[in-house]
Amino acid sequence: MPRVVKHPEDRRSELLDCAQALFFEQGYERTTISDVIAKAGISKGGFYHHFASKEDLLEALAARLAKDAVARVRDILEDPALGALARLNGFLARSRQMKIEDAPKLRAAFDVVFRPENIVLYHRVNGASIAVMLPVLTRIIAEGQAEGIFAVPAPEAAAEIILHLGASTHDAVARTIAVSGTPAEAAAIEALDARFQFLGLAVDRILGLPDGSVIFVEPGFTHAVMTAR
Amino acid sequence: MPRVVKHPEDRRSELLDCAQALFFEQGYERTTISDVIAKAGISKGGFYHHFASKEDLLEALAARLAKDAVARVRDILEDPALGALARLNGFLARSRQMKIEDAPKLRAAFDVVFRPENIVLYHRVNGASIAVMLPVLTRIIAEGQAEGIFAVPAPEAAAEIILHLGASTHDAVARTIAVSGTPAEAAAIEALDARFQFLGLAVDRILGLPDGSVIFVEPGFTHAVMTAR
Repeated sequence: MPRVVKHPEDRRSELLDCAQALFFEQGYERTTISDVIAKAGISKGGFYHHFASKEDLLEALAARLAKDAVARVRDILEDPALGALARLNGFLARSRQMKIEDAPKLRAAFDVVFRPENIVLYHRVNGASIAVMLPVLTRIIAEGQAEGIFAVPAPEAAAEIILHLGASTHDAVARTIAVSGTPAEAAAIEALDARFQFLGLAVDRILGLPDGSVIFVEPGFTHAVMTAR
Repeated sequence: MPRVVKHPEDRRSELLDCAQALFFEQGYERTTISDVIAKAGISKGGFYHHFASKEDLLEALAARLAKDAVARVRDILEDPALGALARLNGFLARSRQMKIEDAPKLRAAFDVVFRPENIVLYHRVNGASIAVMLPVLTRIIAEGQAEGIFAVPAPEAAAEIILHLGASTHDAVARTIAVSGTPAEAAAIEALDARFQFLGLAVDRILGLPDGSVIFVEPGFTHAVMTAR
């Protein structure tokens, strides 16, 4: 049988696929480089050609997830028919992959990323995502400013704050996951949803918009994700 | 020489002192439990009587730092002469130990906590601090709401967002530290200070206050900390 020689980019991408599957299955801390090598069916030397360490692998994975997220918002950025507020709401909905049909997949990822032992994973993925999103959201805000829709003196600083708002709900999400399937679940989901709606209000006010303009998460989204199994 | 028998709380506190000194000197990642044991002059069994692991030590240290911070704001909370806005500004100034005379000590801590390898230390210290501060800031906001000074529907959610705003400047602080002592330093400090002033504006707006009401950091503070050696 002839040996299949793969393109280095394909190999790298395959390694990232294997790492992502293992991190999501058994957690970042519990996954070893040997696990990734075994799953990918690659030599040790082959692995180290692409990545220096497990942390390096995680950084690359976070960057890839962020690039995917930016690809999902591209059409919104380029649609001349959208005003600044519609563009911002579209960006918030899409960049977070907040579509109700994605709920079960998203829930499985949440269960892992929000485990206390995966706090490093959470912050690296979040940080890499923010770095990629920042110029995109800055552009949306600067355009809205030019259109006279937003009233905020520093578009880039505003964008950085808005992108970081999500992390303020980390503990509320973790608490909701912790009571999943117990009688306390319904109340926890309601509280979490109120928390997400409040983030929309915070964004309204930071951008000088009337309360109720920005939709941080779609109605029904919190319930759909949190009750998905 | 008689053996000095110390109270367990004193021992615990001494271990935390040693750990804090080592973490700040050589970084969290590079400090081992053996280093802490050697510095404290305690037996291995004595150490494990108090802490199960290095992570456990870090959690306890973060909780102690947060308790100290709350002690610094107590008089502000209990001063009946202060209105809600003065109480909020006092809380922001004191809880962050943002006094210009503290600059050199604070700068030394910043240099360590903002190193990329200490991102876990940063988030645990920040998280433990937020957990302790949350009920305090919630109370300030709820009182301001009752006084008719603040206009925000959910005091606790607002407090949680405000406490998380600081983390949105993590990268700006790290960037400023990275160019310390180079010709790029002055511009980086100016940009960081503008970033902190903008956080004040974000808090104004979230709480329904006129722009310019909340002082997130004292004037001159950023320059004092960042140029302290």
